Amino acid sequence: MREPDRLPSTVDIAAACADVIERVRAHSPRVHCITNAVAQNFTANILLAAGARPSMTISPEEIGSFVAGADALLVNLGTFDAARRAATDTAIEVAAEESLPWVLDPVLIDRSQPRAAYAAELVTRGPRALRLNRAEFTALTSGEPDGEALRRYALDALTVIGLTGETDVVTDGTRVAAIRNGHPLMSRVTAMGCVASALVAACVAVEGDAWLATTAALLAIGVAGEGAAAHARGPGSFATEILDALDRLDRDVLLARAKVQ
Amino acid sequence: MREPDRLPSTVDIAAACADVIERVRAHSPRVHCITNAVAQNFTANILLAAGARPSMTISPEEIGSFVAGADALLVNLGTFDAARRAATDTAIEVAAEESLPWVLDPVLIDRSQPRAAYAAELVTRGPRALRLNRAEFTALTSGEPDGEALRRYALDALTVIGLTGETDVVTDGTRVAAIRNGHPLMSRVTAMGCVASALVAACVAVEGDAWLATTAALLAIGVAGEGAAAHARGPGSFATEILDALDRLDRDVLLARAKVQ
Amino acid sequence: MREPDRLPSTVDIAAACADVIERVRAHSPRVHCITNAVAQNFTANILLAAGARPSMTISPEEIGSFVAGADALLVNLGTFDAARRAATDTAIEVAAEESLPWVLDPVLIDRSQPRAAYAAELVTRGPRALRLNRAEFTALTSGEPDGEALRRYALDALTVIGLTGETDVVTDGTRVAAIRNGHPLMSRVTAMGCVASALVAACVAVEGDAWLATTAALLAIGVAGEGAAAHARGPGSFATEILDALDRLDRDVLLARAKVQ
Repeated sequence: MREPDRLPSTVDIAAACADVIERVRAHSPRVHCITNAVAQNFTANILLAAGARPSMTISPEEIGSFVAGADALLVNLGTFDAARRAATDTAIEVAAEESLPWVLDPVLIDRSQPRAAYAAELVTRGPRALRLNRAEFTALTSGEPDGEALRRYALDALTVIGLTGETDVVTDGTRVAAIRNGHPLMSRVTAMGCVASALVAACVAVEGDAWLATTAALLAIGVAGEGAAAHARGPGSFATEILDALDRLDRDVLLARAKVQ
Repeated sequence: MREPDRLPSTVDIAAACADVIERVRAHSPRVHCITNAVAQNFTANILLAAGARPSMTISPEEIGSFVAGADALLVNLGTFDAARRAATDTAIEVAAEESLPWVLDPVLIDRSQPRAAYAAELVTRGPRALRLNRAEFTALTSGEPDGEALRRYALDALTVIGLTGETDVVTDGTRVAAIRNGHPLMSRVTAMGCVASALVAACVAVEGDAWLATTAALLAIGVAGEGAAAHARGPGSFATEILDALDRLDRDVLLARAKVQ
Repeated sequence: MREPDRLPSTVDIAAACADVIERVRAHSPRVHCITNAVAQNFTANILLAAGARPSMTISPEEIGSFVAGADALLVNLGTFDAARRAATDTAIEVAAEESLPWVLDPVLIDRSQPRAAYAAELVTRGPRALRLNRAEFTALTSGEPDGEALRRYALDALTVIGLTGETDVVTDGTRVAAIRNGHPLMSRVTAMGCVASALVAACVAVEGDAWLATTAALLAIGVAGEGAAAHARGPGSFATEILDALDRLDRDVLLARAKVQ
C-alpha cells in the first residue's frame, strides 16, 4: 500500500530539492535583488533565513559591482519606476557578461499594460526562471495558464515557469512538477510571492538545472508555510513564523512533508 | 440601569460600523496607496488583514491605470519627495475623473512648512476624509483642535476630519463621533497612524457616508489594538498581534468592545 | 573572588551606559535618519522602543527643517542613490550649523568602491561616531581592524569607532571598550547593524561623550538581543522580540547582564 500523496517520484524530486536547499545553506549565495519597496525587508529576511546573503541597491553607479559580485539576480517589477528600470537594464547586462542566472517576477502586470509589455521584453533577455501567478501569466501571454500553454511558453522562451497558486506548477516545457504544499495564510501576507521568487534566485545560484531549482524553492516555501501555519494565529504571526520555519527547515522536514510530483 | 460607556447611540453607531467592516471583507476593495517608505509593508499587511487589496506603485506611467482600477486612494505625505508629488497630482486627477474617493494623511506637517502648505492645497482638491493627529491639525489650521475648530474646518473644507489621539474624534461638521478605544502601545509602533488612514480609505471604498466610514475604520483599528495589547509583551509583538486581531475582528467583538458615541 | 566577566570597571562603564539609556527615555530625542529602504521600518521601531522619535524624509525641500528640528542625525549608506546623496550633503551642512551630532554607518562599502570612497569623504566631515563591521573597516582603511589600527583611525579622524562583531569594540583612540554581549541570531536578521547605528545616534543626542554614547548603544542592543534570544524560535520571532526586549530594558537588566570592560 502506498500513500496517495507520495508516489515514488515524489521521493526522488523531494530528495533532489532537499539537496538544493542544503546547498544554499552550505554556500550562502549572494543574491542581488531589484525588488519593490513593500517587499524589501521581508525579502532580505527570507533570504537570510534560507542561508543566502541579500543585497538591494539600485544606484546606477553601484549596481554593476553588486551584480558582478553576486551569485544570482532577482528582478521584481513591483513599485517599478525609472530608477529600478535603469538598474534592471544594467544588472541584466552585467549578469549576461558574468553568466549569472537571474529570475523575473512580473508582479501585478495584470494591473498595468506598460509593465506587462516591459515584462515581455525582459523575458527575451534570458531569465533562468519566471515566478508568477495565474493573472500575471494571462497578462503576459493573453491566454489561460493551462498545462499546455505553460509548457509551450517555457519552450518558446527557453525558461522555467514557476506558477504559484493553490497547486504550484513548475515546468521547463519538458518536465512538469506539481507542488501541493502551502497554506491559505500565504495569500494574506504581502509580498509572499515576491519572497518566493527571491528564494528561486537563491536556488538557481547553486543549482544549474533551473527547473529543479525553482521546484526546490517553491517546495521549501510551501513546506515552511505549513510549518508556520501550525503556530500562527493570523497573518501577522504567520509572517513572523514563516521566517522561523524556513530557518529550521531541514532535509527530514522537507522529505516528510513534500507533496510534489 | 445602563452601562456608562454604552449609551443607546453607541449601539447604533457600532452596528453601522460593523456593517462597513463586513462590507470591506465581502467586497475586497482595491486601495491604491501613495504612502511613505516606512509604512509601505505594514500598510499592505493591515489592508490584507482587513480584507482589502493594496497596491503601491508611484511610477508616472503606471499610477493612472492603478488608480483607475482601484476603489479608493490613499495619499500619505510621509517621506514625501518629487516622485510622490508627481504621482499624487496624477492620482488625484484620475480619482476625480473616476469619482473615486480618496483620503489624505498629512504626516508630520508640523515638522515641515512646505509640506504643510502642500497639504492645505491638497485639501482644496476634495479628499473624502483627513486622518491626522493634534499637532498636524494645528499645523494645518494654525489653531487648536477643539471641537468647534474641527467642525468648522470640516464644514469649510467639505470633508471629514478623523483626529486620532487618546480619544479619536470624527466629524463632518454636523455629526461628531468620539471613540475611546485603542491602547497606549499604538503610539509605540511606527506608522500606526498611517495604517489607520489606509483603513479609512478601505472603508470609504465601500461606504458613501465618509463620516461613518472614517468612524468605522478608527473604531476597528482601536478595537484591534485592544485585542493585540492583550497578547503583546511590547511594541514588537504588538505590531504583529494587531494584524492577527484585525484579521479575526468580527461583528461580535466590535459590538462588545466599541466605546463610541 | 570575582567573576571573570565583571571586573570593577565593568560596573562603572555599565552604570554610565545605563544613565545614557535612561536619558534617551527621559528626553525622547528626535533622530533624523537617512537610511536604506530595507532598514527604514525596523529602524523607526527600534528608535521608538528605545524612547526616541524617528523621522526619515530625504526630500531636498524638507530635509533641512527636519534636521534643524532634530537632536541627532544618522547617515546610513545602504541602498544609496542620488536622492540620498543630495539629502546627506544638505543634512550634514545643517547639522554642522546647528552643532548637531551625527553618526555614519558605511553599509557594505566592501561591496562597492564608489561607496567606500564616499564614506571616506564623509568621515572628513565630522561624524561623532562610525558604526561598522570588520569588512567595512577594512574597505575604509585598507588595513586589518586590529586594536592598534582602530585606535589610530579614531585619533586621525577625530571620531569614535564602534566596530561590531562577536565582540564589539568601541574606541576614541584613547579609551577602548569591549562588549561581549549579543547573540548569533543578530546576524540572521536584516538591518541589525543599521538599527544599532540608529541607537548610537539616539545616544549621542543625549550624551556629549561619543565614546560613552556609542558604548551605551551597542551594549543596549547586545543585552536586548540576549533577552530576545531567550524567547525567540528563529530569526523571525527574534526580530519581534528584540523590540520588546529593548522596550523593557532597564537599569537593572543592563547592569545584571553587561559584559563590558
